[in-house]
Amino acid sequence: MKNSRVENATASVGIIGFGAFGQLIAKHLNQKFKMLAYDPSPHLREDASKLGVSIASLGQVAKCDVIVVASPVSSFESVVRSIAPICRPGAIIVDVGSVKVQPSEIMDRFLPEYVSIVATHPLFGPQSARNGIRGLKVAVCPIRGHHHTHVAAFLRKHLGLHVIVTTPDQHDRDAATVQGITHLIAKVLLNMGPLPSRMTTKSFDLISEAISMVQHDAPEVFEAIESANPYAKEVRQRFFSMAFELNSFLEDSERHD
Amino acid sequence: MKNSRVENATASVGIIGFGAFGQLIAKHLNQKFKMLAYDPSPHLREDASKLGVSIASLGQVAKCDVIVVASPVSSFESVVRSIAPICRPGAIIVDVGSVKVQPSEIMDRFLPEYVSIVATHPLFGPQSARNGIRGLKVAVCPIRGHHHTHVAAFLRKHLGLHVIVTTPDQHDRDAATVQGITHLIAKVLLNMGPLPSRMTTKSFDLISEAISMVQHDAPEVFEAIESANPYAKEVRQRFFSMAFELNSFLEDSERHD
Repeated sequence: MKNSRVENATASVGIIGFGAFGQLIAKHLNQKFKMLAYDPSPHLREDASKLGVSIASLGQVAKCDVIVVASPVSSFESVVRSIAPICRPGAIIVDVGSVKVQPSEIMDRFLPEYVSIVATHPLFGPQSARNGIRGLKVAVCPIRGHHHTHVAAFLRKHLGLHVIVTTPDQHDRDAATVQGITHLIAKVLLNMGPLPSRMTTKSFDLISEAISMVQHDAPEVFEAIESANPYAKEVRQRFFSMAFELNSFLEDSERHD
Repeated sequence: MKNSRVENATASVGIIGFGAFGQLIAKHLNQKFKMLAYDPSPHLREDASKLGVSIASLGQVAKCDVIVVASPVSSFESVVRSIAPICRPGAIIVDVGSVKVQPSEIMDRFLPEYVSIVATHPLFGPQSARNGIRGLKVAVCPIRGHHHTHVAAFLRKHLGLHVIVTTPDQHDRDAATVQGITHLIAKVLLNMGPLPSRMTTKSFDLISEAISMVQHDAPEVFEAIESANPYAKEVRQRFFSMAFELNSFLEDSERHD
């Protein structure tokens, strides 16, 4: 572990995609690493310099010791293909998206043999991380090489995260329910308009809090969960068919009253 | 207030309906009042004596200074009609159900002029009250007489509750959303089977916690919310129509991919 790039204070970390999540990563790593970030949007220099991160070209970022791909699902494959020919032997490539099967396959297919690949999914966002990330959960899937043990140790030891080692397939099965259900409920309730906040029960307050945590998520997150997770459709169909069943049951019992 | 029966330590409180909620009330009032309880089920003597409550006939309970009707919606009217001819002048009749319009009308129609009527809805149940009730919410609707101010003061001062004074109509409007939505979501998710508990997000944990708070509620609670609240149907129809709309939207966007 001593020789691991992840545990080496002078290691460089490059973030590709400097949106809300890329910035959250920077905020928690900037004390420990030399940080570079690349984003296609040109308006991020100020945000970056506040976080102690240098905005750089994709070519520069791709030469870091650890490369964190935090791009939306839609551009994930093109980003991976762009860095594949430039990244250095021994580099660790980490992704952080909400689905794991598809990005892991893309990284495994296009990245050169001489890099390590660790697929991760921090099970939190800017909202749930507002009061710090200690104790929050992160899924870690070993894809290639043994660096996942260093990544997991770092996340546990230095960031205080609860690390769940799993496979991309098992991750996507669980996430389809966990994230799929949360976002479906949030979408339905937010479409219903402003919810009561004064005369509420404890359980309703918990549901409102859950919704407020995901309501400002980028649209790409919902898109990723619903269209890029191979198990999302099944969960959605079960959710809606249970809802339809309950609806018919209540309509029927009304008719018989 | 000094002369109020509610603030008088020797006042008697009679609970009609000694189910989970009637027992919760007893637990929080037994230090302060002489407590009697009536329940049609004969198996409650032991529970009652543990709580310092004497099981009595409906006739005895109906002669208390304060009568709390904690019966299910289905038998509410017959209970009110039974106690109407026996209750004493100056008595305070309080109900505690999840809906307020219908029970308030029943109490107002059948109870004699010489009693006070206060409709209440403690916005919690045995699950959410497990760690005490201080800070939890209770809706209080003045129906007849001025004793509602004493009842509200008692709930605030002695039980530490957050009292929300409202009308039966406004209560039912808000509760239709607050309780209707919580129970609809809980029913749908519980029908989907065991939910993941390991690889979860904070927001999903909050939803799971909300569900666990209502999943052991008596079936009468769901029934009361769905069929006795005049606004429940409208909320349910909006919930389901938003769900259907989201379903079609997701099916469509899949087809066009």
